[in-house]
Amino acid sequence: MGALAHKPKLYEQVAERLEDAINAGTLRAGDRLPSVRQLSLREQVSISTVLQAYLHLESVGLIETRPQSGHYVRRRERPRLAEPQVSRPATSATPVTVSALVSRVYQSMRDPNLVQMGGAWPSTELLPTRRLYRELNALTRERGDAGMLYDVPPGCPELRRQLARRSLDWGAALSPEDFIITVGAAEAIHLCLLAVARQGDTIAIESPAYYGTLQAIESLGLRALEIPCSPRHGMELDALQAALERRRVAAVLVVPSYSNPVGSCMPTANRQRLVAMLEERGVPLIEDDLYGDLHFDERRPRTCKSFDTTGNVMLCGSFSKTLAPGFRVGYVAPGRLRERVELLKFSHTVASPTLLPLAIARFLEEGGYDRHLRALRRRLSEQVARMAEGVAEHFPEGTRVARPAGGSLLWVELPSTVDSLVLHGRALDAGVSIAPGPIFSPRPDSYRNFIRMSCGQPWTPRIEGAMATVGRLVRTLM
Amino acid sequence: MGALAHKPKLYEQVAERLEDAINAGTLRAGDRLPSVRQLSLREQVSISTVLQAYLHLESVGLIETRPQSGHYVRRRERPRLAEPQVSRPATSATPVTVSALVSRVYQSMRDPNLVQMGGAWPSTELLPTRRLYRELNALTRERGDAGMLYDVPPGCPELRRQLARRSLDWGAALSPEDFIITVGAAEAIHLCLLAVARQGDTIAIESPAYYGTLQAIESLGLRALEIPCSPRHGMELDALQAALERRRVAAVLVVPSYSNPVGSCMPTANRQRLVAMLEERGVPLIEDDLYGDLHFDERRPRTCKSFDTTGNVMLCGSFSKTLAPGFRVGYVAPGRLRERVELLKFSHTVASPTLLPLAIARFLEEGGYDRHLRALRRRLSEQVARMAEGVAEHFPEGTRVARPAGGSLLWVELPSTVDSLVLHGRALDAGVSIAPGPIFSPRPDSYRNFIRMSCGQPWTPRIEGAMATVGRLVRTLM
Repeated sequence: MGALAHKPKLYEQVAERLEDAINAGTLRAGDRLPSVRQLSLREQVSISTVLQAYLHLESVGLIETRPQSGHYVRRRERPRLAEPQVSRPATSATPVTVSALVSRVYQSMRDPNLVQMGGAWPSTELLPTRRLYRELNALTRERGDAGMLYDVPPGCPELRRQLARRSLDWGAALSPEDFIITVGAAEAIHLCLLAVARQGDTIAIESPAYYGTLQAIESLGLRALEIPCSPRHGMELDALQAALERRRVAAVLVVPSYSNPVGSCMPTANRQRLVAMLEERGVPLIEDDLYGDLHFDERRPRTCKSFDTTGNVMLCGSFSKTLAPGFRVGYVAPGRLRERVELLKFSHTVASPTLLPLAIARFLEEGGYDRHLRALRRRLSEQVARMAEGVAEHFPEGTRVARPAGGSLLWVELPSTVDSLVLHGRALDAGVSIAPGPIFSPRPDSYRNFIRMSCGQPWTPRIEGAMATVGRLVRTLM
Repeated sequence: MGALAHKPKLYEQVAERLEDAINAGTLRAGDRLPSVRQLSLREQVSISTVLQAYLHLESVGLIETRPQSGHYVRRRERPRLAEPQVSRPATSATPVTVSALVSRVYQSMRDPNLVQMGGAWPSTELLPTRRLYRELNALTRERGDAGMLYDVPPGCPELRRQLARRSLDWGAALSPEDFIITVGAAEAIHLCLLAVARQGDTIAIESPAYYGTLQAIESLGLRALEIPCSPRHGMELDALQAALERRRVAAVLVVPSYSNPVGSCMPTANRQRLVAMLEERGVPLIEDDLYGDLHFDERRPRTCKSFDTTGNVMLCGSFSKTLAPGFRVGYVAPGRLRERVELLKFSHTVASPTLLPLAIARFLEEGGYDRHLRALRRRLSEQVARMAEGVAEHFPEGTRVARPAGGSLLWVELPSTVDSLVLHGRALDAGVSIAPGPIFSPRPDSYRNFIRMSCGQPWTPRIEGAMATVGRLVRTLM
C-alpha cells in the first residue's frame, strides 16, 4: 500500500474545461462538441484522454453520444441548477437525538403504497436476483450441512479471498486475513465505533451525515462533531484540522465516495492528506466505502485505506447497494484493531449467517460482478441525471441541487423559507416518500430546507408525476 | 399473562421419592421398578401421573424402559457423583476483561481436528438440514425478489406470527407485534443491554455465566455483578435481593432454563418471585430463553415473561440451539422498551437477512418443529446422561457434576487442586477441546477447577476415548 501523490488527471482537466464552458453557456444544449481529433489537437492531449473526458461527461449526464454523428451537449428543459454551498455546521460537539424523528420518517420509506424517493436502496429491477438465488440453491445442494454451522469470525474465507482480490481495484492490496465479514456495513460501522470510543467520546463526522450513522453514535452514548463539507469534495480538511486542534476526537468517520445524503466525492489528494493527518495524531479513521463501486466515471475512486501504512484506517463496506440489500453481507478491514473488532463481532452477533456471504463469494468468483456493476452504474447515472432534470423542471427558482459523480442520491436545497419536515408530511399525504434534511444532522434545526431524493427506482411517468407533485408542494410552502 | 402460584406437581413428587431411593441405594442398578399399577396404588395417584413420573426419570437417565418387561434402574459403572455446590462469587461489581482468554479458548472450539466437547452447539446430525434447505429453495422460487429487499425492523411478520403462536407454550400469550427479529439471541441480548444501560452501569448476572454475555457486557463498558447460583435452581433470589438493596443495578440478566454453563433450571415459583421483585424496583429483567425448548422433562418451563404484567421483562431467544445455528435467527420481545429496541436494531444491523427467518417461519408453519424437538430432546438427554456416566467412570474421586434437566451442557467441578486452564492446554495437545471454568466469570481466578463439557455430539467410541483422556489428564494434575 504505497502512498502516491495525486494531481487531477489530464482527462479530468479536459472534462472540467468543457464543463465550465457548458455551465457558462458557451456551449449550449444541442451544441455539437468538437470531434475527438480536433479536441486532441486543441488540448494537446492524446485521443484516449479525450475519449476518457467525453466518457466522464456522458456518465454525469452533461453530454450524449449520437451514433455516426458525434458528441452533443444534452438538452435540458431549464438551465442547470446551482449546487448547494459548503455546509457550516455548529463547531461544538453534541449528543445525538435523531432517533424519534428518524423512526417516523423511516416508517414512510418502506411503505409500498408510496412513490419511493425516500430510501437509499436500488430497485430490485437493477439487481441480479435470479443469479444470486441460483448460487444459494447450488450451495444447499453442494455443501452438505455447512449452512447449519456457525461461520465464526472472521467469517467466510471464500468471500474474504474475493474481497482481497477486489481490493486491488480500491488501490489497496489487502489480504484475506485483513477482513472480517459482518451483517452489512451497518454492523461494521457499529463494531468500529465500539472498538475506538467510550461513552461521551466525540466522533467527527460529515455535515450532513447518514442518519443511521447518527443513530449508531447516539445508541453508544457518543457525541458527534459535525465538520463542514463541500457538496462536491466532501469533508473540508482545513476545518477538520482546526477541529482536531481544538478538542480530543476519538475517531473520524467519513463516506469519501458518494456520501449519503450529498453524494460528494473526496478528491484523491484530500484522501491522502486525511490519512496522513489522522495517522500523525493517532486518531483512527473509519472509512465507510458503501457506495465506492457506484462511480459514474470510468474509474473507481481509490479508498483512503489505500494510503494507510500503519493500520490506522478501518475500511467498511457491503454488497447492500450493489447486489443484495436483503442478504445483509458487509465487511470491515479494521487495520491494527483487527483482533479487537473480531472479538466484538463474536460478542455482538456470534457469526454472520453462513450461506449468504458464500453465495455472494460464488457470484464474485464467477466474474459476473464487474459486468453487473457496469450496467448498474449506467442505469443509476441515467436515473440521477433524469431526477436532476426533474428538479430543474418542477422546482421553483432558488432551488439548488448537488451533482453527484456516483451513488443514487440527490441532495436538494430548497428556497430558505421551505420547511422540509412540513413538506415531508404533505408529500406523504400526496403519496410520495422523500427524506427531510433534519434527519441528517444531530441538531434538529439543521438542513430544514433540504431534502434527499433517492434515484434508486427506474424513471417512470409515476416518478415524474411524483416529482411534479413535490415541486408544487414546495411552491405552496414558500 | 396471569401470574399463577406454583407447587411441585404430583408426578414431580412421585419421581423425587423414587430418585431419593435410587440415590440412597435402596433401589439399585438393574432393579425392576414397581409396575405402573402397583405404584399408582401405593402412591394413591393416577396411572397417568405414574407414567409421567417414569417418563421424567427416563429423560434424566435414571431409569430405562425394557419393552414387554417394565422399568429398570439404569446400570451405572460408578455411583452417581455429587453436584457442585451453590456458587459464592465476590459481592462487588467488576469491570469485565475476559475477551483475550475467551478468544484463545474459542479458537480451539472450532478446530475440526479436535474432539469437540467445547462449543455449546448441537451436532448437525441432530438438525433438520434437508427440510430447512428445501424451505429456502422454495422461497427463492415462490417469493420473487423479496429476498433482495430489506426486511426492516421489527422484521419477518410470518416468523413473528409463529413466535406468537409458540409463546402460548411458554406460558405467555404474546402477539406478533411484541417481537423483533434479530441476528441470533446474541444480537437480542446486545440490543437489550444497549436499551437499558449506560457505560459504567452494573448488570446482575448468574455466577457462572455464559462467556459471550460477559463479552457483550465488557464491550459496552458495563460492570458485572455476579449473583450466587445453585446448580439445580439457578440464581439465588435472596442473594439477588440483598444485592439490589446494596447497590443500583441497571438490569438483571438470567438464563432461567438450562443456564450456560451449569444447566440449572429456575423453579416456576422463583421465576414468579424474580419478576415481582424486579417489577417492584423498576429494574428490567433480561430473560435469555435460548435453551427453553430443550427440556428433558415432558413440559417446557414457563418463561419469566409469562409472569410479566408491566412489560418489565425483555425475553430473548433463538433457533440456534434447536434448528439452524448457521441461519442466525433470533428474536426479542422487549416489553415496554419495544420501540427503543426496534430503533437500536435498525441502527445496529439495519435488518436481519430476509430469507432465513422466512425459511424458519415456513418450517414452523408446517408443524414439523414439535416432532423435531421431541427427537432432539431425547437425543440430547441421552447424550448428557452418557457423558455424565463417562465423567463418573473416568474422572477421579472428588469430582462433582451438575444434573441438568435440559440443554446439552455438563458443568464439572474437578478436585480443587486441578487448574482447568492448564488442563485445557493439555487436552488440546491430546486432541480434545473443552471449555475451562475461568471464561465463565469476569474474575479470571474464579472456577479454576471447573470445566464445561458439551454433549451436543452423538456418543461414540471417539468421544468416550476423549473422555478417558481428559480423566487421565485430570489425575496427573491433582
